[in-house]
Amino acid sequence: MGEFDLIARYFKRPSREAEPGVALGIGDDCALLQPRPGMQLAISSDMLVEGRHFFPDVDPAHLGHKALAVNLSDLAACGAKPLAFTLALALPRVDEPWLAAFSHGLFALADAHGCALIGGDTTQGPLNICITVFGEVPVVSGKSQALLRSGARAGDDLYVSGTLGDARLALDALRGSISLPANVLTQARQRLEQPTPRVALGIALRGIATAAIDVSDGLLGDLRHVLKASHCGASIDTSVAIQLIASHACGKRASGQFDAEFSLQNRLNWVLAGGDDYELLFTAPASAQAAVIQAAHSSATSVTRIGRMDEETGLRLVDANGQPVSGQFASFDHFA
Amino acid sequence: MGEFDLIARYFKRPSREAEPGVALGIGDDCALLQPRPGMQLAISSDMLVEGRHFFPDVDPAHLGHKALAVNLSDLAACGAKPLAFTLALALPRVDEPWLAAFSHGLFALADAHGCALIGGDTTQGPLNICITVFGEVPVVSGKSQALLRSGARAGDDLYVSGTLGDARLALDALRGSISLPANVLTQARQRLEQPTPRVALGIALRGIATAAIDVSDGLLGDLRHVLKASHCGASIDTSVAIQLIASHACGKRASGQFDAEFSLQNRLNWVLAGGDDYELLFTAPASAQAAVIQAAHSSATSVTRIGRMDEETGLRLVDANGQPVSGQFASFDHFA
Repeated sequence: MGEFDLIARYFKRPSREAEPGVALGIGDDCALLQPRPGMQLAISSDMLVEGRHFFPDVDPAHLGHKALAVNLSDLAACGAKPLAFTLALALPRVDEPWLAAFSHGLFALADAHGCALIGGDTTQGPLNICITVFGEVPVVSGKSQALLRSGARAGDDLYVSGTLGDARLALDALRGSISLPANVLTQARQRLEQPTPRVALGIALRGIATAAIDVSDGLLGDLRHVLKASHCGASIDTSVAIQLIASHACGKRASGQFDAEFSLQNRLNWVLAGGDDYELLFTAPASAQAAVIQAAHSSATSVTRIGRMDEETGLRLVDANGQPVSGQFASFDHFA
Repeated sequence: MGEFDLIARYFKRPSREAEPGVALGIGDDCALLQPRPGMQLAISSDMLVEGRHFFPDVDPAHLGHKALAVNLSDLAACGAKPLAFTLALALPRVDEPWLAAFSHGLFALADAHGCALIGGDTTQGPLNICITVFGEVPVVSGKSQALLRSGARAGDDLYVSGTLGDARLALDALRGSISLPANVLTQARQRLEQPTPRVALGIALRGIATAAIDVSDGLLGDLRHVLKASHCGASIDTSVAIQLIASHACGKRASGQFDAEFSLQNRLNWVLAGGDDYELLFTAPASAQAAVIQAAHSSATSVTRIGRMDEETGLRLVDANGQPVSGQFASFDHFA
């Protein structure tokens, strides 16, 4: 099968009604997007490499899902509505069952978000998936409604969506460094391989959140980007944060005790520095608490207040009484 | 050096005056583009893989140039004006001299076209460069001015810019299958490693050319895409086409004879099926001939009329008298 047959069979789809905003899709030198008047285009690009971002034996349908999900998560963090994406794919060989499953997983998520594949590239090479995604953000009275990392202010509440640490729990179990019951592993693995981009929450937070980022490298590492861009500090209540990883998943016994591999320090590490979570970390003024709860409700996404932004720079971990908690937590860096 | 230091050192540049159309560049979850009113956004994505698109020992400055050039060439083929690009880069390791040279070559071409790097991704993995490029195309009276593959009509003249075959000549020499004098190899190699995207010509051809494509896989293969999209055929005058590869480059002796490795068939093969040319192949009505010449002149790009579009489907190679020329010519396919 040649390059163009491959594209035609697995990636070019029967034309449906015209996608809004897409003037021309796959099949020419360029695709053409026509953002609606008053709209900015939010753009993000992520590259996934075998052995680095996924195991060689991962279900290709899950990989198709994840490759798009991590990009949609960036749109979510900006409050952008998904519009379209390009896919560049290096494949060691033409493996038709693999391609069928990959494109199935990819398009299932794309369709759920009304996000059209408008172009890309295919070539032979070590497996590599590079998606660039496009979303719309309104500009109101000359002001972009995009959520940025730079808008947090001292006194703002700090929130995170969903749960944290599950993906890293699965990764550690798959690498054999911890053991999990089968049903727990299944759930955690789904979070690792098929993360849910918080698109609806991001859109609902426009005009409410002061800053946002998606948690991909680990909560602490990603929060540091917000602190740097917003020129402020933060305190995280670890007694709340620890609850973001399901205790039943962490070997809690009937006695309430945990096995050593699920020590408080280890659980906190999964939550604070696990990575691959694709939840939204965001800030909002205390006065906007009801609006945040309403945004969470309208987007059917759980949200937890885990701390507060401080005047004092730096990041502090505190207990329920505001007393310092010590610990070493590292976030993910591709070249560290 | 960590991922974020790497980006800061080699890819994030001191802010200059605001780039037109770029509302937010590198440093957040998404970049924000704000196309001017009445403008469509043309988008193209190309992935370059070591060993497939370039030799492992290629000068990284040339590679930086080429990675962007092949994308700008797609914008040129649509008549789009470059605006911005994203860069996703998988690197086996952090090699600072390599990164310095790569980014130098990349930005030299980007600056020449006023094309801003607005975001991307870096990760560890087998060397892979994926660029997605964005350009503007005006919409006039509700009609896009983008040049497409689908607008050619029987009777249109068929043109190609610049020269063809040089890149393949260099490739064959570097692989050792032919030998070239050093000065000839230097010139041909520059065409292979540092192609010139025909951006100014593409823009000048708006409203004149009926169809356009850039020659990346080889003239015949790329022309077939135009024929398919435009539902017509074409005839190419090989007596003209053969002149698109410099005869001095092909071992022409004082006697006017060529060495066997530079036979007519071989030279024609380099021209018609060489690939990696990044010239524009385009069509225009015979009545627009003066306008085509003016567009070539205003963009300082040579243009040659090599044939004509036919009612009869299929592709015909003819001599100066319109008589059929036989030959087998294959264009490049990544999975064939």
